[in-house]
Amino acid sequence: MTTQPETTARLLVTCPDRPGIVSAVTTFLYHHGVNITELDQHSSDPSGGKFFLRLEFQTPNLDISREALLRAFGDVVGQRFDMDWRINFAADKPRMAILVSRHDHALLELLWRYARGELPVEIPLVVSNHPDLRQAVEGFGVPFQHIAFSAETQQAAESEMLAALDGKADFVVLARYMRILSGDFVQHYTSRIINIHHSFLPAFPGGDPYQQAYKHGVKLIGATAHYVTAELDQGPIIEQDTARVSHRHSIDDLKRLGRDMERQVLARAVRWHVEDRIIVDGNKTVVFS
Amino acid sequence: MTTQPETTARLLVTCPDRPGIVSAVTTFLYHHGVNITELDQHSSDPSGGKFFLRLEFQTPNLDISREALLRAFGDVVGQRFDMDWRINFAADKPRMAILVSRHDHALLELLWRYARGELPVEIPLVVSNHPDLRQAVEGFGVPFQHIAFSAETQQAAESEMLAALDGKADFVVLARYMRILSGDFVQHYTSRIINIHHSFLPAFPGGDPYQQAYKHGVKLIGATAHYVTAELDQGPIIEQDTARVSHRHSIDDLKRLGRDMERQVLARAVRWHVEDRIIVDGNKTVVFS
Amino acid sequence: MTTQPETTARLLVTCPDRPGIVSAVTTFLYHHGVNITELDQHSSDPSGGKFFLRLEFQTPNLDISREALLRAFGDVVGQRFDMDWRINFAADKPRMAILVSRHDHALLELLWRYARGELPVEIPLVVSNHPDLRQAVEGFGVPFQHIAFSAETQQAAESEMLAALDGKADFVVLARYMRILSGDFVQHYTSRIINIHHSFLPAFPGGDPYQQAYKHGVKLIGATAHYVTAELDQGPIIEQDTARVSHRHSIDDLKRLGRDMERQVLARAVRWHVEDRIIVDGNKTVVFS
Amino acid sequence: MTTQPETTARLLVTCPDRPGIVSAVTTFLYHHGVNITELDQHSSDPSGGKFFLRLEFQTPNLDISREALLRAFGDVVGQRFDMDWRINFAADKPRMAILVSRHDHALLELLWRYARGELPVEIPLVVSNHPDLRQAVEGFGVPFQHIAFSAETQQAAESEMLAALDGKADFVVLARYMRILSGDFVQHYTSRIINIHHSFLPAFPGGDPYQQAYKHGVKLIGATAHYVTAELDQGPIIEQDTARVSHRHSIDDLKRLGRDMERQVLARAVRWHVEDRIIVDGNKTVVFS
Repeated sequence: MTTQPETTARLLVTCPDRPGIVSAVTTFLYHHGVNITELDQHSSDPSGGKFFLRLEFQTPNLDISREALLRAFGDVVGQRFDMDWRINFAADKPRMAILVSRHDHALLELLWRYARGELPVEIPLVVSNHPDLRQAVEGFGVPFQHIAFSAETQQAAESEMLAALDGKADFVVLARYMRILSGDFVQHYTSRIINIHHSFLPAFPGGDPYQQAYKHGVKLIGATAHYVTAELDQGPIIEQDTARVSHRHSIDDLKRLGRDMERQVLARAVRWHVEDRIIVDGNKTVVFS
Repeated sequence: MTTQPETTARLLVTCPDRPGIVSAVTTFLYHHGVNITELDQHSSDPSGGKFFLRLEFQTPNLDISREALLRAFGDVVGQRFDMDWRINFAADKPRMAILVSRHDHALLELLWRYARGELPVEIPLVVSNHPDLRQAVEGFGVPFQHIAFSAETQQAAESEMLAALDGKADFVVLARYMRILSGDFVQHYTSRIINIHHSFLPAFPGGDPYQQAYKHGVKLIGATAHYVTAELDQGPIIEQDTARVSHRHSIDDLKRLGRDMERQVLARAVRWHVEDRIIVDGNKTVVFS
Repeated sequence: MTTQPETTARLLVTCPDRPGIVSAVTTFLYHHGVNITELDQHSSDPSGGKFFLRLEFQTPNLDISREALLRAFGDVVGQRFDMDWRINFAADKPRMAILVSRHDHALLELLWRYARGELPVEIPLVVSNHPDLRQAVEGFGVPFQHIAFSAETQQAAESEMLAALDGKADFVVLARYMRILSGDFVQHYTSRIINIHHSFLPAFPGGDPYQQAYKHGVKLIGATAHYVTAELDQGPIIEQDTARVSHRHSIDDLKRLGRDMERQVLARAVRWHVEDRIIVDGNKTVVFS
Repeated sequence: MTTQPETTARLLVTCPDRPGIVSAVTTFLYHHGVNITELDQHSSDPSGGKFFLRLEFQTPNLDISREALLRAFGDVVGQRFDMDWRINFAADKPRMAILVSRHDHALLELLWRYARGELPVEIPLVVSNHPDLRQAVEGFGVPFQHIAFSAETQQAAESEMLAALDGKADFVVLARYMRILSGDFVQHYTSRIINIHHSFLPAFPGGDPYQQAYKHGVKLIGATAHYVTAELDQGPIIEQDTARVSHRHSIDDLKRLGRDMERQVLARAVRWHVEDRIIVDGNKTVVFS
């Protein structure tokens, strides 16, 4: 498709389902010179359920300013259907901060894709509770900040992190960050913190999932990317995958195979977040992938 | 979703891409009391490409007759955008004829799903070039007809089959039918004959694909469901899948594993065809699954 | 491979790991005219761990009787290495009883494979707590027995089932049998009852796993075949698989997709059991597949 | 498993199949104080076929020198069974040279795994026909050499490469090296050059496989790792994988998804080669993975 990032925009909508929504939205956009290039919708129940919509559209012939478009959409369509909506312009790259501990595989996967131009984001900052990965991060031209984090210093550490991220990050990725963040921290980035957990949740929440998988003798191991909420490993699931294992695999083998899965699953989840493909619906997600 | 087959309808559209199509279609339907429950679209290229659309909608509050809806859609929308379009009503179950030789796995998979109510079709007839499967077919309450087919009798056999199917079948499934049909036969059911081929096409077209796979030492075997055209094993691909194999697998093992894949791949392809999810675009398919 | 069922035998061994086991076993068999066609081994830890071995061998040139072979193996090799071992001859087809409730998909999958000659078993009996499936089962030439089962009648029902199976069944398959069997019943068939559970255990044990999966918004659903122990859904896992789902799938869709997975996973587990490929090791399995 | 690289060795055997081979091999090793930790075997046909064996064993209690073990094995066992065999000691890390053009994803995947200690190899040299990747390679502490390669300079370029590799490389990986090597070059490294091809061979050999896949409308794209022979894209297949695609994917999307697969497939193939898990059998491979 010959779409251009400079002229691509996306509309996400959640509202009560009722007839006429798509007609109203697409007619509004058509009348302002917009060309729709992707449209996905979902209804939890056509009578009395919730309606979800994602539209990707091209704006080279937009007949009003972006600001006017936003204002007019809210006035003409949003209010009428009681919508929760937003329009993002692809030219405004989202800013992604990364939190990491010592395992570097998930972090490096994101940095490599970023360096290759595969991930349309800016990366203002990587924060770690260990100093080890400074060189690896700075080699990509990305700033690194070490903020120690222990049970006693949690509050101070989180304050320092919030200050470091403030005004710089639109969303945060936990690329194997091994500290549990407080509900207080999390609420600053509701539905904007993505975590990669190394099991197919809800199996094996909490610590050491590969040891648990080994002990249970499961024949599949998994990885799960999800939005972080105040409840540990309970947030809305974005993406999951599994790989076959057998009695021949040691715990170290599970970890090695798991790393490959974590990298792939997290990369997909981040890509979908950045392309505005995810709508959070309570403890679940609608992913228009 | 609380949709009812009795009131469900589907619109499929192919037309030159240009702005305003979705707005026109959805506004037309909205004004006639229709509630859209699924909408998928695809554009091969937003400037000058082809546009494809699938809409599923509910008609309990339709304000005109079905016939009037069809006529009005053509007059008001279809002509304006130069559309190739059709509307099917789910209550009118499509009639599926099956052609089969001696292998029964693909045939039985379809009959079982039909018997269980998983496949919304009627099955007026199973035709075979062997008499062997009569009892198995009739046990499902489905008529069986044996029509012999050899190189010398091909023309007569095809005439007999066309007569048997005429007015009874909306589409035809080749559930491991091991005779090659003439271009003449095929053109009676353009984009309406589904074949299951036992390899991941375009690898291993023609006969004995498992022997070929074994000889090549591939690490994956596959199955492909496609629409039949006059060129053998070249028609538009609907669905494919693969399974891992190794040096431990004999040709018989490949056939056994392959049968499971053929059953699943064919069942998915038939389901999508029946639910009006497939649009043929030259030698390719758009599948809104 | 040109192996013949009539002359194929399999040896399964569990014993403390120490040097010399494979040498002793293979030298013993070689000296009695046996040709080894498959050999798989596993050690939980080469120093002080457990050793597992599966040998498939051909006996056309066996120089002693089967009985003498068994006796000699025990005397010469088994005792020396403190082995838990058994030798099965493929000509002695294992007898598989099936317990089922109302869902027929897992039952039919096994009966179809049996009818096609894909499963080398005899099926002496299908028992159900509902009368519904009598005709379907008897159509395959397999005896069917209805034994009602409720909370009040559990003890009597289990006694009746044990009596029906006694001397007739080598192992039992629960093909979606929806009653929980007592520990008392289970211990009659230790490591010889295979259950198919409709989730990727240990996620979603107990009832209604598809509803739970839907509620959690997981992106994968699964199926698990395991040996039954006194603890519900906790027995050693034999095989698992998963399928991708999304927000578009209703609970009914999950059930439909799940049925296909249950059929495949159970069929694989039963095949491996019948081919003597599984050794139970505490709450885990070694599967030489 | 508590095996140590320093004391781990592996035996690979190909010979005519006949009774007594495993007994002779394992008894020989047992008598020299060796502990077998893995054993895999395969027979193309028990009567008159070829026999393949891989043994992994531990040598802390070896009662003779390594040299004496090799000599004695050849004299006592190898000659008797007419074996093609080799024993490798894991402590002697194989030396892997990499050839690459401009695409860096396959190269970087190998370098990252090497840097992380996941790949037990030494990397003496990366050679490229473009200067672009020098900095990326040298950043891993690996020497980089630019050797230009065009149709006219092919002979000189290959001579320069052979000189650069001579005495330094045990095997060569083509990590998206876009030049076709002559049969003359290839025969210096028979069964020791691994290539990653970006399709599921034998479909789409030669150039531009993603364009071909797009044109054919396949629903799966693939990647294949294989040993290089004089015939382009025809060498023995080591590993393959596929990923689902649809009408929504542009050629660029196929390339992006393909890159992820190529990285994974090549990494698995290299790992198996390095762990002596692959035996080439004519135009096929036996992979004891």
